[in-house]
Amino acid sequence: MIKRVTIAGVMTGTSCDGVDIASVEFDSESWSPKWEASRPYPKKIRDRVFAIQKVGARLSLDEIFSLDADIGTWLGKTLTEIIEGLTAKERPEIIAMHGQTVAHAPLRKPTAYTVQLGEPTVVAEMTGRTVISGFRQGDIAAGGEGAPLVPIYHYLLSSVLPGSEKGVALHNLGGISNFTYIKPDGSVFGVDTGPANVWIDAAVERISKGKKTFDAGGKIALSGRVDLPALKALLRHPYLKRPAPKSTGRDEFPPEYFFARAKKLTGEDLVATATAYTVETIVQAYEKFVIGNGNPLSAIYLCGGGAKNDTIRLWLADLLPNISVLRIEDVGFDSQFIEAQAFAFLGYRSLLGLPVGGPWTGAEKFGPPGKITPGKNWAEILKRLP
Amino acid sequence: MIKRVTIAGVMTGTSCDGVDIASVEFDSESWSPKWEASRPYPKKIRDRVFAIQKVGARLSLDEIFSLDADIGTWLGKTLTEIIEGLTAKERPEIIAMHGQTVAHAPLRKPTAYTVQLGEPTVVAEMTGRTVISGFRQGDIAAGGEGAPLVPIYHYLLSSVLPGSEKGVALHNLGGISNFTYIKPDGSVFGVDTGPANVWIDAAVERISKGKKTFDAGGKIALSGRVDLPALKALLRHPYLKRPAPKSTGRDEFPPEYFFARAKKLTGEDLVATATAYTVETIVQAYEKFVIGNGNPLSAIYLCGGGAKNDTIRLWLADLLPNISVLRIEDVGFDSQFIEAQAFAFLGYRSLLGLPVGGPWTGAEKFGPPGKITPGKNWAEILKRLP
Repeated sequence: MIKRVTIAGVMTGTSCDGVDIASVEFDSESWSPKWEASRPYPKKIRDRVFAIQKVGARLSLDEIFSLDADIGTWLGKTLTEIIEGLTAKERPEIIAMHGQTVAHAPLRKPTAYTVQLGEPTVVAEMTGRTVISGFRQGDIAAGGEGAPLVPIYHYLLSSVLPGSEKGVALHNLGGISNFTYIKPDGSVFGVDTGPANVWIDAAVERISKGKKTFDAGGKIALSGRVDLPALKALLRHPYLKRPAPKSTGRDEFPPEYFFARAKKLTGEDLVATATAYTVETIVQAYEKFVIGNGNPLSAIYLCGGGAKNDTIRLWLADLLPNISVLRIEDVGFDSQFIEAQAFAFLGYRSLLGLPVGGPWTGAEKFGPPGKITPGKNWAEILKRLP
Repeated sequence: MIKRVTIAGVMTGTSCDGVDIASVEFDSESWSPKWEASRPYPKKIRDRVFAIQKVGARLSLDEIFSLDADIGTWLGKTLTEIIEGLTAKERPEIIAMHGQTVAHAPLRKPTAYTVQLGEPTVVAEMTGRTVISGFRQGDIAAGGEGAPLVPIYHYLLSSVLPGSEKGVALHNLGGISNFTYIKPDGSVFGVDTGPANVWIDAAVERISKGKKTFDAGGKIALSGRVDLPALKALLRHPYLKRPAPKSTGRDEFPPEYFFARAKKLTGEDLVATATAYTVETIVQAYEKFVIGNGNPLSAIYLCGGGAKNDTIRLWLADLLPNISVLRIEDVGFDSQFIEAQAFAFLGYRSLLGLPVGGPWTGAEKFGPPGKITPGKNWAEILKRLP
């Protein structure tokens, strides 16, 4: 039996557009989302995050680990300010932070790894709270891909979604696109489909010369023309042919990869083609892993920043005619914060020593969950644990 | 009240000569060392650890984080083999691993950091045990130097050492040399004095063309001649003038720094001069921080790999005539494993959420202790915690 504990999930995705924070209350029998907040990514830190991921980058230890500390300091400061504005009852006792992914190599031989920056002790010291972090490494240590990790929360969510008796998918459109399919019998499948905002945002930044960072509502994509030869070349990416379980990241789909194959394109056409690529790879994944195998699918619920991109949603609906393509907002959840809530839930599981991966990550044995950094309030937390 | 828990401390020092493992049993009222083991450092991993620390090194993320995973795998394998050879009663429930330091920048502005490699989730997965790691970052987050961290265990130990009523020091000779002084009133002071085996080992490796890795018994040093002009030049190192609290590492005292100032020396003279430098910087530190301030000091107990270097011990005794310079073996402890035991104790403190630094590290507020990676046995551990 665990007594009531409030956990703030803190998500910074591969697209580095901002940090999403969602507080969720848990006890042994129930869970309930409480409040959400988001803050923009500081440009200077964002630039450094992208710089160390450049293909062929050669770095000093100082460049990497000062960034680790600086991301910790930024998150610690942001969370402290937010917490100070809350009532005592609203304040989270625990912070479950994903960290900023800068490398993800789950298939590397002989040893795999994944790297999320943002030093948790800095956040624990600044906020006075216990912090849980490093959720992906333990799954990789157990032979999993360390991703996707949201399916276990999507499964929890699906129980309250219309259509779950006929098969539903929760689809996250972040820097990378991934979905969780929940069969009517409750079994779970999850996969990363490929890039979403990583390429779309990079295309928008390029054509607006940095004035815009994302395609609001998908309007730019809608005003451009999809270049079919470029799309065809991009669809040869080897990730798309790999069998599941599989996961990917910015390192496998860097914007440079896109620009190199879309060299002839300019203006809105770049954005339209990146958007079409996102949609096409998503449709292929549903066909390959769900529909094509005769699995029932009545509705796809979009979440993540890209769920606000109407062009993605409409193009998906066109290509998947018998399936309702909805935003999770349509059933009362805030799309933007599903991932942050998911990490709050993974923080809760970590406290209990429960794994955060499963068949959808490819882990076939117990993978250690997130790492617990005891904060000033650890003795208090211990009293609530079983 | 905490129920009995057995923790294996795992120490890999800056000199990369091997891993020392020491198991200690704790409960609320007592502690008792149980067994020790050590294994050599794999040459391939050692070479990579040194390579990424080379001054001016430019690295890929892959070089750093594959090494992090490989050190984790080596430690996981080593610990699994050792644990399998133990009786059920002897097996530790928790592993408290220091990790391999590759950078330590506690004074960096605006953000400080320290880096210990060795992925703890890999060790937790392979051993099935809960792992505690990353002991230094929280102290740095609280404004401390993240070092030295052994004083708190030295204090525990001093209560059973002869002479403690007249002031004693426990002196660790690892890659870096550091001591803890415990005043008769129980107050504690700790400081890093400078390099020990980092330079001596490098000198031995150079003159033996890699055939020897350390100066057994200090015999090489004894057969060489100390070069006074080189010694004088080396004593100008700015670290020696810094006020306490202070700590240092291989990055501030790389072997290259030594060789550049001992250019004219060859053969045994290189080893003799590195050894004399270790001794001279130690004596200066005792004069500056202990004796010179009128603090009583009756005995220095040497521990760490360098305690087996008779030349260091005899030269120290010569230069500190009124103080007994002993090996901690002389009073029944195994010198080599004091640091590993200390990290077992810091693991115990981390479980309870107690800080691992203090005035001796310069931390003036609560610093989060080590990070807990829940292993398969976490639910069992939770039952023993208060």
